[in-house]
This record gives sequence, structure tokens and C-alpha cells, in this order.
Amino acid sequence: MKLVPLGDRVVIKQLVAEETTKSGIVLPGQNKEKPQQAEVVAVGPGGVVDGKEVEMQVKAGDKVIYSKYSGTEVEIDDEQFIIVKQSDILAVIE
Amino acid sequence: MKLVPLGDRVVIKQLVAEETTKSGIVLPGQNKEKPQQAEVVAVGPGGVVDGKEVEMQVKAGDKVIYSKYSGTEVEIDDEQFIIVKQSDILAVIE
Amino acid sequence: MKLVPLGDRVVIKQLVAEETTKSGIVLPGQNKEKPQQAEVVAVGPGGVVDGKEVEMQVKAGDKVIYSKYSGTEVEIDDEQFIIVKQSDILAVIE
Amino acid sequence: MKLVPLGDRVVIKQLVAEETTKSGIVLPGQNKEKPQQAEVVAVGPGGVVDGKEVEMQVKAGDKVIYSKYSGTEVEIDDEQFIIVKQSDILAVIE
Amino acid sequence: MKLVPLGDRVVIKQLVAEETTKSGIVLPGQNKEKPQQAEVVAVGPGGVVDGKEVEMQVKAGDKVIYSKYSGTEVEIDDEQFIIVKQSDILAVIE
Amino acid sequence: MKLVPLGDRVVIKQLVAEETTKSGIVLPGQNKEKPQQAEVVAVGPGGVVDGKEVEMQVKAGDKVIYSKYSGTEVEIDDEQFIIVKQSDILAVIE
Amino acid sequence: MKLVPLGDRVVIKQLVAEETTKSGIVLPGQNKEKPQQAEVVAVGPGGVVDGKEVEMQVKAGDKVIYSKYSGTEVEIDDEQFIIVKQSDILAVIE
Repeated sequence: MKLVPLGDRVVIKQLVAEETTKSGIVLPGQNKEKPQQAEVVAVGPGGVVDGKEVEMQVKAGDKVIYSKYSGTEVEIDDEQFIIVKQSDILAVIE
Repeated sequence: MKLVPLGDRVVIKQLVAEETTKSGIVLPGQNKEKPQQAEVVAVGPGGVVDGKEVEMQVKAGDKVIYSKYSGTEVEIDDEQFIIVKQSDILAVIE
Repeated sequence: MKLVPLGDRVVIKQLVAEETTKSGIVLPGQNKEKPQQAEVVAVGPGGVVDGKEVEMQVKAGDKVIYSKYSGTEVEIDDEQFIIVKQSDILAVIE
Repeated sequence: MKLVPLGDRVVIKQLVAEETTKSGIVLPGQNKEKPQQAEVVAVGPGGVVDGKEVEMQVKAGDKVIYSKYSGTEVEIDDEQFIIVKQSDILAVIE
Repeated sequence: MKLVPLGDRVVIKQLVAEETTKSGIVLPGQNKEKPQQAEVVAVGPGGVVDGKEVEMQVKAGDKVIYSKYSGTEVEIDDEQFIIVKQSDILAVIE
Repeated sequence: MKLVPLGDRVVIKQLVAEETTKSGIVLPGQNKEKPQQAEVVAVGPGGVVDGKEVEMQVKAGDKVIYSKYSGTEVEIDDEQFIIVKQSDILAVIE
Repeated sequence: MKLVPLGDRVVIKQLVAEETTKSGIVLPGQNKEKPQQAEVVAVGPGGVVDGKEVEMQVKAGDKVIYSKYSGTEVEIDDEQFIIVKQSDILAVIE
């Protein structure tokens, strides 16, 4: 099952913090979500949205900062996603 | 009786979860609605809506994610439908 | 006395449910209004409304679904009408 | 003293119900105002209003339905008028 | 000291009712302000305001009806003025 | 340290009333601010602001009336300034 | 790790007041933030944002005044940033 966003929408997945113990062991997946940090999962085609031409500037795999409280949470196959408009994405983390 | 939506409106019907018992038997229609998941029933013609050209991007039969709290619930012949604007449809599920 | 709507406005009249008794007798006009279902009584000329070209897509006699809480209730010659903008009409029932 | 409305504004005066007694005698002017029914007293020139071309579609003498709670009540020479925008006039009564 | 309004702004001064006694003597200036009636004191140049071309339609000396609660009260040299946008002026009194 | 406003912004400084005693002596700087009266300190370049061409119509040194409650108060080097948009300036005092 | 803002967004970092003791010793970094004063860290590419062409007018290193309560606070690698739209930047401090 795959989410194909419409228009200028972007499917993102919140990033989970990797925790490194003092001894250097990485403990991934402790479900400690990094606030506002997410990975882009799927990107809409852009085009004319609400009467305005929108060009998509992020791509799947990008790590991004998104605007708090924006978007719609969706659960597909027991996985949590957030669907936001590209304008709710503030910056790419490089 | 058939609903023919105007403009950029789309008639959708909420999806009902199929439940599979542990033994593998599918129990359809337990009326457990999947939140925000719906099937497209009818699609308006698009065209100029509120002064802006809108092209319809979904079609009858598409499974879609729509924005919570959007749209108008309608009951026709004892069946429940929701009429939303296409812009309230966030993504197609493939 | 006749209502001639201006611009993109449409005069509608709420539909009253016909009730069928178990024996099959139709009991019309019990004043049980069908929510959001109405018949179009008169249609404005359309044209430039609020700076945007509007083409009228409904006609007198159409049965329509309209958006709850929209429009203005008007009483003319002891008959109740609702005047809505065409954009408050969601779908035509065929 | 005369009110000359600017732009797309229209000066209207609320209609007063003529009351007919059972014997057929008309009792005019009992000051029972007909809600939302008014007569057009003066019409602005239209033209570009708020950046949009507006053509005036009502004329002095028209009986109209106007939107409740819209407009500004004005008292000139002890007479009550309401100044509305043409877009607050929903329909002409013929 | 003189107020020169910018853009589509208009400086107005509320009218004070002349009171006529029963014997016909006019008692001016009892400081009984006529609500919403004012005299235009100065008129801005119009031009492009908020991206829209505005043509000024009132001139100094015009008696006008203005929209209640609109505008900004200003005191210059112990005189009270109100600065409104031209669109807050509803009608000219002739 | 100097404030250079962006776009259609204007840096203003509230005017302080000069007080003249009965004997004619001017007592400046009693810190009695004249409400809504200010002197223009610096003016942005104008240009395209929020998609609309804005031409600056005030200049440094102008005494102006500005809209109450508008703008952002800023303290630079212990001096108080207000940064407003030009559209919050209602009139120039000449 | 680097923040690359999208569209007309700007990454800023609040300025911390240098404190100078009476004897002239500068005490930097006492974490006394200067309200609304920030340094630009990274600037988006501008371009068409929400249907309007935006040209970026600030650059990394600029000291700016920004609008209180605007923007989104972000923590990256234990450093605090604020991501604002360029239109929330009121002035450059030179």
C-alpha cells in the first residue's frame, strides 16, 4: 500500500532519535521522536494548486523541518505518517 | 438516485475495515470505519471554481485519504456519503 | 409574487419527504423536511460576481444537495424559501 | 436632503406591511416591517469597487430581499434608511 | 497645522446639529453630534492602494455618511478629526 | 547603530509635546507623548511587497499620524522606535 | 548539520547581549537575549512563494529586527534557531 499525495502535498514520517549510550552503543528506535524533524516519504506532482503554480522543492529521502501543528496525521498499515503542504516545510537539513 | 457533484466537488464513501480473524477468515462489513479513508463515488466536472481553473485528479473507484472534519455528510437512500472539495483529498492510496 | 435572484444566487425550496406506510400508501406532505435536499425554484443570471466570472450550472426544477447553515431564509406569501449562492450547492440528485 | 450612495452602495427603505382586515379594508402603515424586504431608494454609480468592476443591477423603486444584519442604518430628516452593498441584495421581488 | 491624508484616506469632521427653537431661533454648536454625518476636510490623492487603483470620489466640503466604528480619531490643535478610508464613506448628502 | 527598514516599512519615533508655560517659556521634553503623532526616522525602499508594487510616500523628517496599536516597538541604544508599514501611516502633518 | 530554508524563509539566531562591566570588561554570553534582535544564519532562495515573486533582501550575517511572536523555534544539535519568513524581518541594523 502506497500513499500518492495530490497537488503540493508531501507525505512525511517523523524522525526517531538514535540514542548513543556513553559507551558508544547506538540504540535506535527508542520511539523518541525528534520534534518537527521528519523524512520525506512521497511528494505530490505540484502544478496549479489553488490557482497558483507550485514547483516541488523537496524529494523523497530529504530530512526536513516542518511547521508544528500543521498537516494531517494518517495511519496506513500501522505506520504513522503526516501529510503536509510543501509550504509547511520550513527547511531541509543537510 | 445518483449524486452528481458540482464544480470541484467529490462524493466519497468512508471505507469499512475488513477484519481478518486469526484463522484467516475475512469478516467484512463490521461497520468499523477506517478514519479518513474513503472511496471516490462521483467526481465533479472541475472547470472554473471560485475564479480559478481546477483540473480533477481523482476518479470514481480511487481509494483516498481525506482531511478530517472537512466536507458535508449526506444521506441518500439510507446510504451515507461525504461531499468534499477535491482540495480536501490529501492523497490516493495505491 | 416572484423572486428573481441577483448574480450567482439561487432560490431553493426544501424538499418534504413522502412517507410510505407499510401497506404502501404514500402520505405526502407530512412536513418532514429532508435535510439539505431542496428543489431549485429560480436561478440568478450569473456573470461577474465579486470580480469572478460565474456560470450557472443548476436550473429550476433541479433537485439538489446544499450546504447546511448556508443561505438566507425568506418568507414570501407564507411560503418558505432559502436563497443560497450557487457555490453552496454541492450536488444535483438525478 | 438626498442621499447619493458611493460605489456599489444602495440606499434602501424597509417595507411596511399593508394589513388587510377580514372585511377587506386595507390598513396601511401600521409600522409592521416586513423582515428583509425593502424598496430601493437610491443606487450608487458602480464602477471599480475594491479593485473589481461592479455593474449595478437594481434601480430605484425595485422591491428587494436583502441579507439580514447587513448594511448601516441611517436616519436622515427623521426617516430611517439602510445603506447596503449591492452584493447584500439577494433577489428582486416581481 | 494641516492634515494631508495618504492614499485613499479622507479626513472628516463630525457634523454638529443646529438646533432650532420653536420660535425659529437657530442655536448652533450645542455640540450635539449627528451620528455618522460628517464634513470632508481633506482628501488623499488616491492612486494605487494595496495593489488596487483607487479614484477619489469625495471632495473637501462634501457632507457625507460614514460607517460607524470605522476610522481613527485624531486630535490636532484641540480639534477632533476622524481619518477614514474612502470605502468607509457610504453616501454623500446633497 | 542605524535601522534600515525592509520593503514598505517605516521607522518612526513618537513626538513629545513641547509645553509652553503661560509666560511663553517652552518646556521641551517633558516626555508627554502626543498620541499617534510621530516623526519619520527611516523609510524602506518600497518595491514589490506581498506581490504588490508599493511606492513610498513619506520621507525622513515628515511628521505623521499613524494608526493606533499598529507596528512593532523596538528599543535600540536605549531609544524607542516603532516600525510600521507605510499603510499604517494615515496622514502627514504640514 | 546545516539548515537550508525553503522559499522565502530565513533561519535566524537570537542575539545575546554583550555586557560591559563598569570597569570596561566585556562579559559575553550571559544568555541575556536581546528581544527581537537576531543574526541571519541562512537564507532561502526566494522565487515564487504562494503565487508571488519574492526577492531575498537579507543575507547571512545581517543583524536584523524581527517581528515578535513570528516564526518557528527549532533546536538542531542543541542550538536554538528561529525560522521566519522574510516578511517577518522588519529592518536591518547597520
